[in-house]
Amino acid sequence: MKTADKRNVTAIDCVSQDRQWQRLMEIAQFGAIAGDGVNRACLTTLDRRARRKLIGWAMEAGATVSVDEAANLWLRREGTDTQAAPVLTGSHMDSQPRGGRFDGIYGVMAGLEAFTAMAQAGISTTRPIELVAWTNEEGARFAPGCMGSMAWAGVKPISAFFDVRDHTGNSFGDALAEHLLAEAELPRRPLGNKPHAYVEAHIEQGPRLEAQGIEIGVVTGIQGSRWFKVTITGESAHAGTTPIAMRRDAVQDTMHAIAALNTLMHDPDDILRFTVGRLTIEPNSGNSVAGSVIFSIDLRHPDQAVLIERGDGIAGVVAGAMKTCESTVEEIFHALPKAFDPLVIGAVEAAARRQGFSNMRLPSGASHDAQFVQPVAPTGMIFVPSHKGISHNPAEYTSPEQLAAGTRVLTEVLLELAK
Amino acid sequence: MKTADKRNVTAIDCVSQDRQWQRLMEIAQFGAIAGDGVNRACLTTLDRRARRKLIGWAMEAGATVSVDEAANLWLRREGTDTQAAPVLTGSHMDSQPRGGRFDGIYGVMAGLEAFTAMAQAGISTTRPIELVAWTNEEGARFAPGCMGSMAWAGVKPISAFFDVRDHTGNSFGDALAEHLLAEAELPRRPLGNKPHAYVEAHIEQGPRLEAQGIEIGVVTGIQGSRWFKVTITGESAHAGTTPIAMRRDAVQDTMHAIAALNTLMHDPDDILRFTVGRLTIEPNSGNSVAGSVIFSIDLRHPDQAVLIERGDGIAGVVAGAMKTCESTVEEIFHALPKAFDPLVIGAVEAAARRQGFSNMRLPSGASHDAQFVQPVAPTGMIFVPSHKGISHNPAEYTSPEQLAAGTRVLTEVLLELAK
Repeated sequence: MKTADKRNVTAIDCVSQDRQWQRLMEIAQFGAIAGDGVNRACLTTLDRRARRKLIGWAMEAGATVSVDEAANLWLRREGTDTQAAPVLTGSHMDSQPRGGRFDGIYGVMAGLEAFTAMAQAGISTTRPIELVAWTNEEGARFAPGCMGSMAWAGVKPISAFFDVRDHTGNSFGDALAEHLLAEAELPRRPLGNKPHAYVEAHIEQGPRLEAQGIEIGVVTGIQGSRWFKVTITGESAHAGTTPIAMRRDAVQDTMHAIAALNTLMHDPDDILRFTVGRLTIEPNSGNSVAGSVIFSIDLRHPDQAVLIERGDGIAGVVAGAMKTCESTVEEIFHALPKAFDPLVIGAVEAAARRQGFSNMRLPSGASHDAQFVQPVAPTGMIFVPSHKGISHNPAEYTSPEQLAAGTRVLTEVLLELAK
Repeated sequence: MKTADKRNVTAIDCVSQDRQWQRLMEIAQFGAIAGDGVNRACLTTLDRRARRKLIGWAMEAGATVSVDEAANLWLRREGTDTQAAPVLTGSHMDSQPRGGRFDGIYGVMAGLEAFTAMAQAGISTTRPIELVAWTNEEGARFAPGCMGSMAWAGVKPISAFFDVRDHTGNSFGDALAEHLLAEAELPRRPLGNKPHAYVEAHIEQGPRLEAQGIEIGVVTGIQGSRWFKVTITGESAHAGTTPIAMRRDAVQDTMHAIAALNTLMHDPDDILRFTVGRLTIEPNSGNSVAGSVIFSIDLRHPDQAVLIERGDGIAGVVAGAMKTCESTVEEIFHALPKAFDPLVIGAVEAAARRQGFSNMRLPSGASHDAQFVQPVAPTGMIFVPSHKGISHNPAEYTSPEQLAAGTRVLTEVLLELAK
């Protein structure tokens, strides 16, 4: 075991597995759905009730509260140098419509538990430590996600999202105004600042840590994504009357396209992620030959070169697979891989090792607010295992022990970076 | 040219291509939609206005009118032997929601034109000739289709359909009662009778006649159909985080199933019809691995043995194609092939030949009211070409010449069978 700051050890010892679990379960009541799930959309009354609960606990731990114009919620633990750039942690509190109890909220509650443990241990740090709950990470009520972190990082002004509407027709702008009014008595702070570093704890949302029996994922970055919309155009025809030789069947050519894409996307190392998850068939009638199919491609890889080469190959491979139909391929989203900072990666890895947790480096397969913080400040993430990799589902599960391990690592990382 | 009844020749000469076309176009105004289409649902005001128009023209040609309790509309041209079993022709007047100007209504208007030509030629027949417009063949407003012919043939009592509802919640029973009230002054006739023979003129709704440059299709029967619902069950997972080796991707296994089914269903003669036209994917999200896919199989063949052998092979072939998912196969509809009667087939073929029209025998790929008449009386059908085989679509097209050729053959067949 390496030498470590005694004060850190004390704070880590004060991290309570039971308190964290009980608080997580308490927050999960705001929007609880059948099967231990959570449906807590951003900027709703449920969201505000969960935030009030968090604020109360954070203030008990000595934090001060503020809200910015994107409704990101900030909880600050003052440093001895009040002017120093703060160390930032956090995640999000909104969920998918049929989400679980851990995605996002775990990272917020881990920060809260770190604050609580530090207060209990009577520790002060040089740098302030801030905990943020970003607005609308999921993009489930208002698309796209990560609006709060994007606005904070200056990717887009928050007003760029005002016209986005939810399923019931409410605009993001109206929902945000209503929310800020409901939290009008909380101090305001301006959007944007430059933290010393950012570290976000999160469930893996994938199966790798559990499959390999690893307790802590040292996240090296967020893999790049390219999303494509493929349109296969044939001709609708009567299923009973049209000979096969005269058909231009869009379902059949879609099958050929996917088979050819499987070959293009083959990766013996199983790092590349290739998914056809959405198909829209017209007319989608059992007794009609399909006239058109639109299908999605979600391609991800941590290596930008691979992402570009394979992604750029899609249109040609699909066109070559057509037997009777025509194809078009449109790229609808492109995010380059984001590499996290050695400062934070190293701190996470060192803390996990020192505390005796098995750990591995891995890129994040999913998107997170961290990818928008990454260009602004040294950034990293801590993953804890997800049972069977299940996420965005009520069955999402990480054990109290696994969650506490992540929080203990987070606590040490925050103290190291803030000392 | 074979010898023929002089009176027949006169009646055939009186069939007017222009009159038939103009009347078809006039009827197409009842429910006209963009692109030369028709949306005329059964038992609606539009349907009743079209029926009134038909009744007026038929009465001008000397027919009498009656309606049965299923709202099938009957127009009778009396024979010299009023007690003889009538020769029956007809089809349906309802359309698909985005239908064309010819499907169904052509068979009714062809019968009307035959009546008109016979009247003009001053011809009398021994047997009465009846023209029927069957209620709700399409099944578009109230499913299933062919309610009128099924009730007439005794397959089911008309009351069996009373609780079926349309998209706005109206029941078939209420719509039928409203309709019968609106036609209350028309004479009623009982459901069911045994005609001497039934011959239905219809557009092919397939491409074979046009592709081979044939004017008249001599329909030998209605091929058998088997419909299956295949469920592929995998596990939904995050597209960004889940390695390919750990996935149970229902889209991928659906692709394997369809590829294997293509092999099972291969038919070098291109008579077998195998269609996967409908797919329902869950959750159908671009960044989620599909957890399940349900897809339809529509299998048709004129030979019952083939239909049974191939259809019964589906479940095993699908199960064998699964790499990571599970499959179930459920048969949801089974209709044996219906062979038409040599009496009517021969009469249609003879008339086409005598009039010098190119002709070929073929089974009907689509279902028609004729399949419910087939068990009751000697039955046959006359097909005219469909441009590109397009049907159930505003672009449905058959030329005035092609339609008149079918009507001339129908006229001769009716006279031959009724003499």
